[in-house]
Amino acid sequence: MKAIPHARTKFAVIIMKSDVRIFGLEGFPLVKAGDDIVTLLLKTARTLGIPIAHGDIIVIGHKIISKSEGRVVRLSEVRPSARALKIGGRTSKDPRLVQLILGESKRIIKTGPDIVLAESKQGIVCLNAGIDKSNVEGEDTYCLLPADPDLSANRIARRIRSKTGKRVRVIVTDTYSRPFRVGQSEFAIGVSGFDPFFDYRGDRDLFGRVLKFKCVSIADELAGAAELVMGQGAEGIPVAIIKGARRIRERRCRPTPRLAIKRNVDLFQDAL
Amino acid sequence: MKAIPHARTKFAVIIMKSDVRIFGLEGFPLVKAGDDIVTLLLKTARTLGIPIAHGDIIVIGHKIISKSEGRVVRLSEVRPSARALKIGGRTSKDPRLVQLILGESKRIIKTGPDIVLAESKQGIVCLNAGIDKSNVEGEDTYCLLPADPDLSANRIARRIRSKTGKRVRVIVTDTYSRPFRVGQSEFAIGVSGFDPFFDYRGDRDLFGRVLKFKCVSIADELAGAAELVMGQGAEGIPVAIIKGARRIRERRCRPTPRLAIKRNVDLFQDAL
Repeated sequence: MKAIPHARTKFAVIIMKSDVRIFGLEGFPLVKAGDDIVTLLLKTARTLGIPIAHGDIIVIGHKIISKSEGRVVRLSEVRPSARALKIGGRTSKDPRLVQLILGESKRIIKTGPDIVLAESKQGIVCLNAGIDKSNVEGEDTYCLLPADPDLSANRIARRIRSKTGKRVRVIVTDTYSRPFRVGQSEFAIGVSGFDPFFDYRGDRDLFGRVLKFKCVSIADELAGAAELVMGQGAEGIPVAIIKGARRIRERRCRPTPRLAIKRNVDLFQDAL
Repeated sequence: MKAIPHARTKFAVIIMKSDVRIFGLEGFPLVKAGDDIVTLLLKTARTLGIPIAHGDIIVIGHKIISKSEGRVVRLSEVRPSARALKIGGRTSKDPRLVQLILGESKRIIKTGPDIVLAESKQGIVCLNAGIDKSNVEGEDTYCLLPADPDLSANRIARRIRSKTGKRVRVIVTDTYSRPFRVGQSEFAIGVSGFDPFFDYRGDRDLFGRVLKFKCVSIADELAGAAELVMGQGAEGIPVAIIKGARRIRERRCRPTPRLAIKRNVDLFQDAL
């Protein structure tokens, strides 16, 4: 257990064995292309008196990563293809936005009134291939997902290590609508430094019976937990630091588990 | 800000304005039919030195509620109908378990090898209508969902208020597989004392633009956050207390928002 002075409130940041604690990086500056997110992150944490420690989980809304990586596009610079014009007509979406979605998608899954559901190049099934304009400056400016969120997460983790000596885990997140449920919640779209799943299969329950199915998406739960301090509007808190989370294991030496499921093993196939 | 002595560790429980804190009720006793969960909950929290305060969010895995409400069934007492036998043959599931699922469902959505996906009587789309045997005592014993999780949540919140004078919010949760994603995570299936959604629609973003779609399922994010300390195996931590969560609003005077979406407005309809 550590007690570290808390600069702003003059109270100690005490992490007990038994609890999880989530800090929002309030006052994070606006990010633009070319900005060094890690420098901004460490500076903001220092100002707030939040120490970075080994094992901390740094959760970052993808938008500031996309912005820093220049993944921001103006519709006025986009020329819609014939296909984009056709889908635009059918969905009442701006054909230039549809063109952006097509450019970021492996496949279009569904179109409907104001709906384009796609599997993004990153393998994520979501509306508009994750392209969004909230909290992006400029009337006709849209933000794309980072081209490779795992790579972005790795790069950020490495850079935090080189600047602080601390080995942190990083999650890149986005906010998605979910089938069967009302409202949106936050999901992990990129992970660095730990296994995004905690697999109970083969473990035993309270009564000694072997668990056959349970495999928890810790990464998605951490993403949702982080959103509790981050918010979606004008809060301006794009980063959270989670301390005290258990069941965090080094990523094992096997093919990288994918957060998005393969179609042929999705239990919900044909269910909607 | 409050500093309250922490009985076991002799450190203070300090809740800062800027962070969310999640405590797991370790050492919670095993629950059986007729047990008073609130008494057990308050006793465990007291032993751990975790104070109950106004606005705390008490997250409870549904299983201890189901057990206390006697929603536990032995397969040996179930007689499968002709339909259950037929589905049992098709899915290789025990026809008596299928019978239980049929009895707890509004409709069966999909059957396949070892898969029965149903809309439960509570309106939740999930595998086996939420019927499960992990952490349930007895070789052929299964646990059903609480008959009315909102009612259970309300009853627990009222009883905590009458015993402590504190107005808490309660979430009842279960663990579900999700379409498009690998692994399971925790979802809210019953809520008391607050609006499960934080609706940004009509609010403005960082650059003053009106948000048109964002409506966050705070209840589901709190459920997932709680699971980070609860676990799914032999941890024996069925309750979490979340302190410091923001965007928690009294439930507004309008028809109770349902956590499960209506089929005709599910954007993902026909998408799987």
